[in-house]
Amino acid sequence: MKKYWSKRIQELEAYVPGEQPKDRKYIKLNTNENPYPPSPKAIEALEGAIGEAMRLYPDPECSAVVEAIAQCYGVEKEQVFVGNGSDEVLAMCFPAFFDTDKTILFPDITYSFYPVYADLYQVPYETVALNDDFTVPVDELLNPNGGIIIANPNAPTGIALPLDEIERIVAGNPDSVVIVDEAYVDFGGVSALPLINKYPNMLIVRTTSKSYSLAGMRVGWAMGDNSLISALNTVKNSINSYTLDRVAIAGGAAAIADQEYFEGCCNKVIATRQRSIAALRELGFECLPSATNFIFAAPAKISAQELFTKLRERGILVRYFKKPRIDRFLRISVGTDEEMDALIAAIKEIIA
Amino acid sequence: MKKYWSKRIQELEAYVPGEQPKDRKYIKLNTNENPYPPSPKAIEALEGAIGEAMRLYPDPECSAVVEAIAQCYGVEKEQVFVGNGSDEVLAMCFPAFFDTDKTILFPDITYSFYPVYADLYQVPYETVALNDDFTVPVDELLNPNGGIIIANPNAPTGIALPLDEIERIVAGNPDSVVIVDEAYVDFGGVSALPLINKYPNMLIVRTTSKSYSLAGMRVGWAMGDNSLISALNTVKNSINSYTLDRVAIAGGAAAIADQEYFEGCCNKVIATRQRSIAALRELGFECLPSATNFIFAAPAKISAQELFTKLRERGILVRYFKKPRIDRFLRISVGTDEEMDALIAAIKEIIA
Repeated sequence: MKKYWSKRIQELEAYVPGEQPKDRKYIKLNTNENPYPPSPKAIEALEGAIGEAMRLYPDPECSAVVEAIAQCYGVEKEQVFVGNGSDEVLAMCFPAFFDTDKTILFPDITYSFYPVYADLYQVPYETVALNDDFTVPVDELLNPNGGIIIANPNAPTGIALPLDEIERIVAGNPDSVVIVDEAYVDFGGVSALPLINKYPNMLIVRTTSKSYSLAGMRVGWAMGDNSLISALNTVKNSINSYTLDRVAIAGGAAAIADQEYFEGCCNKVIATRQRSIAALRELGFECLPSATNFIFAAPAKISAQELFTKLRERGILVRYFKKPRIDRFLRISVGTDEEMDALIAAIKEIIA
Repeated sequence: MKKYWSKRIQELEAYVPGEQPKDRKYIKLNTNENPYPPSPKAIEALEGAIGEAMRLYPDPECSAVVEAIAQCYGVEKEQVFVGNGSDEVLAMCFPAFFDTDKTILFPDITYSFYPVYADLYQVPYETVALNDDFTVPVDELLNPNGGIIIANPNAPTGIALPLDEIERIVAGNPDSVVIVDEAYVDFGGVSALPLINKYPNMLIVRTTSKSYSLAGMRVGWAMGDNSLISALNTVKNSINSYTLDRVAIAGGAAAIADQEYFEGCCNKVIATRQRSIAALRELGFECLPSATNFIFAAPAKISAQELFTKLRERGILVRYFKKPRIDRFLRISVGTDEEMDALIAAIKEIIA
């Protein structure tokens, strides 16, 4: 019964996140969380933020997080916007930069939240088909458009574009905003950050949910020209003045400031990923080259859907997308070495 | 330079929250925060939520909060939607229930975020003028409309409508959604909750920021018919799957569950409010009858703007709205007895 629903949402198909089951203990390789805990300094900061001051509103500008980002990434504070996870930041980009009468472009296979944001904000879009090897067809993103959004590295393929290709997209669209979603860049991609002062139309979006092990606290951000940041602040202040709570602000700032711990975790994940890709290939899987904390892998002797189901029965969760072109793949988040060993052992059993 | 801003936000005037100054210690009576800390059980739950699990996403359904609300308010879980503060919940109501070609109604003097939400989501609106005594003109809200939003008690007047008047609005608009923003209801208003099973077009919006002393954690919610709640979930899942972090979920649930502590704080605030109104009236102020945790008060011997400035110089923050009809008033949040005594003493000094 949708009598009271607006016309806008009558047909809207919302995003469905990977499951967060509560029924039993799983080896959770389905939502690209980091297998390592957040920095001990972040935990300490989270604890330190709790107290009687909870009765007071948080800092609406999230200054502590903005300052940590400005310092660690070498940008001006005015080039930083902080939000409740990168999903919220991305959602705010749509009304900030895209119009209802200009068609934006993004790849056909990418983060499946992009078409949902577009539908909610009634922004028309066209998708460009990835090449046969699942790389992004850069030339197609130079066609006339009202905006571009790409994930780099892309999800769920895991494949990264080199910096010169990103620059070609940004430079080739001087009248559109190009959003580069770098949620996974810390695991082997090359950031577009060096282009930030050169191109006023480029916005980089980041998250602490993957590389900073802080998915539970909801801290994401954008970096770009002051004018883009101001637009995002205008949207934010038309929705919710206080998107990050006191604890998230403290923990987010401390996690970002602890670059040494962060790099250590990223390196461990990268090493485990490479080991796991080798092991999967030995079992006949086709694995796309991953610059992320997940592996997009197609099994040889069993359908992806069947393998997904059988892994789940054995207490191992991965993600399966029943979608054209990618339904022979599983997206497997990189866990600890032990978790990946358990995965490989389970797969061997299943395909035996 | 707004070259890259969408047309939608070119002229958008965002909401400006009350200041959260960092420069010095103030007696903060400007953003309607509770002067008492959150329940010790909430503090304990906040602390208990911190740990290695921060690397994992939070529960996207905020089940712990939903369950606490269902239990304390005697509603079904399917009648509850939880969001990042009531501001976010309200913001999601606009695309969920209001169309871009039907005019919604709200009072001319009310929470100043409503026209901002409407502008962002391109929902046309008309305001109905409050009566001369600042009460809501119920009959005017029975005119044809595409939706209604009212704060009850209203802000910044503090005046509450009785339940039968709310019912008249809800019953008189069977084809529109009527949103009743009850942010302040716990301080003396009468909730529309008893109407929830009778009217599928009524949505109640609540917050933990005032009566539950949890402004720092961002937990708000809505209660209404299942179909309205489903619409809100559709909008939420088109923006951000995880709007509350792990700590906020734990603390919000515990704060709501501790009804005894909550009632104690509300009663203390109400007692202090009545004392303060009496003291202000003795100084010649006109005070509207308040059913909230703030007092809307017009000084007699000095302009509101001047008094605002002089109080600020003395380290006391209140809120002044430079707007037609209400620019002779100050909105004064109810603090502790000591804080209100300091306020009264400062006012005496200033007007002497």
